[in-house]
Amino acid sequence: MNFSIVSYILGWILRFEAAFLLLPTLVGVCYGEWRACGCYLASALACFLFGMLLGKKPNSYQLYAREGFVSVALGWIVISLMGAVPFVLTGDIPNYIDALFETISGFTTTGASILGNVEGLTYSSLFWRSFTHWIGGMGVFVFIMAILPMMGGSTMNLMRAESPGPSVSKLVPRVRDTAKILYEIYLAITVAEILLLCISGMKLFDSMTITFGTVGTGGFGVRNDSLASYSPLIQVIVTVFMILSGINYTFYYCLLMRHFKDAFSIEEVRWYLAIILGAAAIVIMDISSLYDTFGEAVRHAFFQVGSIITTTGFSTADFNAWPQLSKTVLVLLMFIGACAGSTGGGFKVSRILLLFKNIGRELSTMIHPRLVKKIKMDQRNVPQEVMQSANVFAAVYFVIVFVSLLLIGVDELDFTTNFTAVAATLNNIGPGLELVGPTSNFAVYSSFSKLVLMFDMLAGRLELFPMLILLVPSCWKKY
Amino acid sequence: MNFSIVSYILGWILRFEAAFLLLPTLVGVCYGEWRACGCYLASALACFLFGMLLGKKPNSYQLYAREGFVSVALGWIVISLMGAVPFVLTGDIPNYIDALFETISGFTTTGASILGNVEGLTYSSLFWRSFTHWIGGMGVFVFIMAILPMMGGSTMNLMRAESPGPSVSKLVPRVRDTAKILYEIYLAITVAEILLLCISGMKLFDSMTITFGTVGTGGFGVRNDSLASYSPLIQVIVTVFMILSGINYTFYYCLLMRHFKDAFSIEEVRWYLAIILGAAAIVIMDISSLYDTFGEAVRHAFFQVGSIITTTGFSTADFNAWPQLSKTVLVLLMFIGACAGSTGGGFKVSRILLLFKNIGRELSTMIHPRLVKKIKMDQRNVPQEVMQSANVFAAVYFVIVFVSLLLIGVDELDFTTNFTAVAATLNNIGPGLELVGPTSNFAVYSSFSKLVLMFDMLAGRLELFPMLILLVPSCWKKY
Repeated sequence: MNFSIVSYILGWILRFEAAFLLLPTLVGVCYGEWRACGCYLASALACFLFGMLLGKKPNSYQLYAREGFVSVALGWIVISLMGAVPFVLTGDIPNYIDALFETISGFTTTGASILGNVEGLTYSSLFWRSFTHWIGGMGVFVFIMAILPMMGGSTMNLMRAESPGPSVSKLVPRVRDTAKILYEIYLAITVAEILLLCISGMKLFDSMTITFGTVGTGGFGVRNDSLASYSPLIQVIVTVFMILSGINYTFYYCLLMRHFKDAFSIEEVRWYLAIILGAAAIVIMDISSLYDTFGEAVRHAFFQVGSIITTTGFSTADFNAWPQLSKTVLVLLMFIGACAGSTGGGFKVSRILLLFKNIGRELSTMIHPRLVKKIKMDQRNVPQEVMQSANVFAAVYFVIVFVSLLLIGVDELDFTTNFTAVAATLNNIGPGLELVGPTSNFAVYSSFSKLVLMFDMLAGRLELFPMLILLVPSCWKKY
Repeated sequence: MNFSIVSYILGWILRFEAAFLLLPTLVGVCYGEWRACGCYLASALACFLFGMLLGKKPNSYQLYAREGFVSVALGWIVISLMGAVPFVLTGDIPNYIDALFETISGFTTTGASILGNVEGLTYSSLFWRSFTHWIGGMGVFVFIMAILPMMGGSTMNLMRAESPGPSVSKLVPRVRDTAKILYEIYLAITVAEILLLCISGMKLFDSMTITFGTVGTGGFGVRNDSLASYSPLIQVIVTVFMILSGINYTFYYCLLMRHFKDAFSIEEVRWYLAIILGAAAIVIMDISSLYDTFGEAVRHAFFQVGSIITTTGFSTADFNAWPQLSKTVLVLLMFIGACAGSTGGGFKVSRILLLFKNIGRELSTMIHPRLVKKIKMDQRNVPQEVMQSANVFAAVYFVIVFVSLLLIGVDELDFTTNFTAVAATLNNIGPGLELVGPTSNFAVYSSFSKLVLMFDMLAGRLELFPMLILLVPSCWKKY
């Protein structure tokens, strides 16, 4: 392990966080919240100082896969540890464990909260809470790589550790250019949604925070009822942007390059949209009797299906009170998740496609033992390593679900609550069912269980392996 | 597809079932239940006639993997369809769908019941119900192969389709001899338990039926409270035999051959016992305050842990009323299951070991990319196909869980009930939690959901693929 490069990267991460923390400071100035303003400024200074301490020139710029994973995992832990500080200083979330839960939930774009009364927070904290979604959505490291000409070719190892999906598709040969393009598309979608929401009559502050939660597929709102009390038009706009944010960014890149045929032939995107339509159809049939008009049922169904499959977690209705079939559909969507290469979490549609194709191959090998069939995706052969890694991902995924269920079982809450709490954190969704349903929050859990769920959120966002590798002793050996 | 060989095999299966049905007829004679006696005799005759019709000499004895899977899947469906008939004729279970559910639950050694009052059945039906466990435990095809010198070497394809576990371990080179040895060990364990139970003061009828349920890891009892009202001594004996029945039969074969070192070095068996000890320890701590003495808590904990991990499904206590942590442990055990090559169901300990070893290899490849590590089990290299098939098994398994949850969701029962109902049927356990807990039964479900759960029971017992292959159109093509 090349510790000096890891420390160097952590130093940069912290200095970037210091810059990010100036934004809520500015919000504090705008709203005359001088105390909060001071707290955020102090936190920014602390980040900057720690960043300078850690970020001294490394002995060697060698950055192998191992350093990549460790830097990313530790980087996310460190920004969360520091990002929680202003919540405590402002008194918005006095307990540090709770503040850390909220911050990790923010950066990982989960949106699970321990707060019963969001509307009681300062504007600075509300802004910071939502802004963590925006940073975490596309990724801290991707952001840094887009800006800094850091350390040559080996940054691919950082990109690989932070980007979601079974394989990293570099849009263009250079990692830095890929990172730039990704953030440009991200920024364009962000600006578009903020503008549309403002035009629809939403206040600028709400438009910005809700947009951060949408495009980052986070889910923190600024009202206690999430999005239920906004106008139907606003809810429709958010639905559309949630679904757009769950699409593989390669799709947008193809559109930009005017490769329309390529864009619309991406298998993952087609299946993703098909699943949304199918799931919404079932939910509409199931809930139509609950609402006055059919249109209302359609709106709530698409909103909730879009919110869960993209792992955003906003709500316009208390879906915990919906009939069981709809709740089952939503729980299953939690495990599907969005497209790889989007800001969404979960298992990812492309991985599920791979597993289905693998099943199909095994069945046809059983029926025709002498037939050699290759697995293809988007007309290209899938390499054996990618298939193997999707399989291992699935295994690790269910091991984490099982172990988490066992650990949080000590709180003696009911099975549905625990199961959906794990599903909602590991898949970076936010609300679950029963005691962690959309009208409740995660404050019911003990600090121990909260720590378990924090691990799940980080593991989910970083696609399991970076967090697991931290637990392997041989990873820490010096060269 | 060689249809004539499939028909020939089905013919044999039915003639064997006719013979099996003579046993409950005999029980009817002993208890003077003449009506029931007549019904079972009539069913036996019907089976024999159908058997003669189907079992005419085939055009060709070619039996490829495809015919093996189809024969086994159809064989299990056919014996269930016919085995349900006497329940309807005797009036013990007037509804055919319910009778079919009960029969499939019996043959697949699930033990999930739709009966509220077991004690109201005739002795013939009680015996038949439990005897299906005994036949299904080791397997109908294994039984036939042990007796008939059927069709040369290709019977391996039947064995492979019916035997549980990631790979079929032939104990001895010839399939027929392996089948014989398995049934001899099975018979010896059966006789030992019946004797011990009789000595402990159980009636012969109860001893036999409970033993069938234990050694076949089925779980049908003959009292409404399962095993709760029997003496502690009897409960302890059943606990021991349940745990013994969940062990890989290779272990017993090694003991018989006096290869003691080989026997005790089987990794799967060691892990299986370790998991039982660990799970029981957690449950004992969790439930000790509920019982008068510590010993009672220990007894109930080991009974229930043994019952669930071996997928038997007997109960001595209403574990649905236990604290959540214990219930969580039991739900997780449902997904682990017993050893491969035992009579138990579930995911199988060895498959879980393989998946863990695969995870370990992937992690070390990530840390040391140039390291080539092979997966070993019991000091032998695991072939790539076995690993691949374990991965596909896991994927299919969770797909079936998801689809089943969605389908039975239409009954609008709560999530915990549905989730544990699917877990309890797919893993061939029996009782779940809440509405399908140990004091309740599966009568709450609609006929449609019962059909879904029947599919799950058959898929679970036959290790998923034979049932799935029936659904692939290209499987039915003529050569």
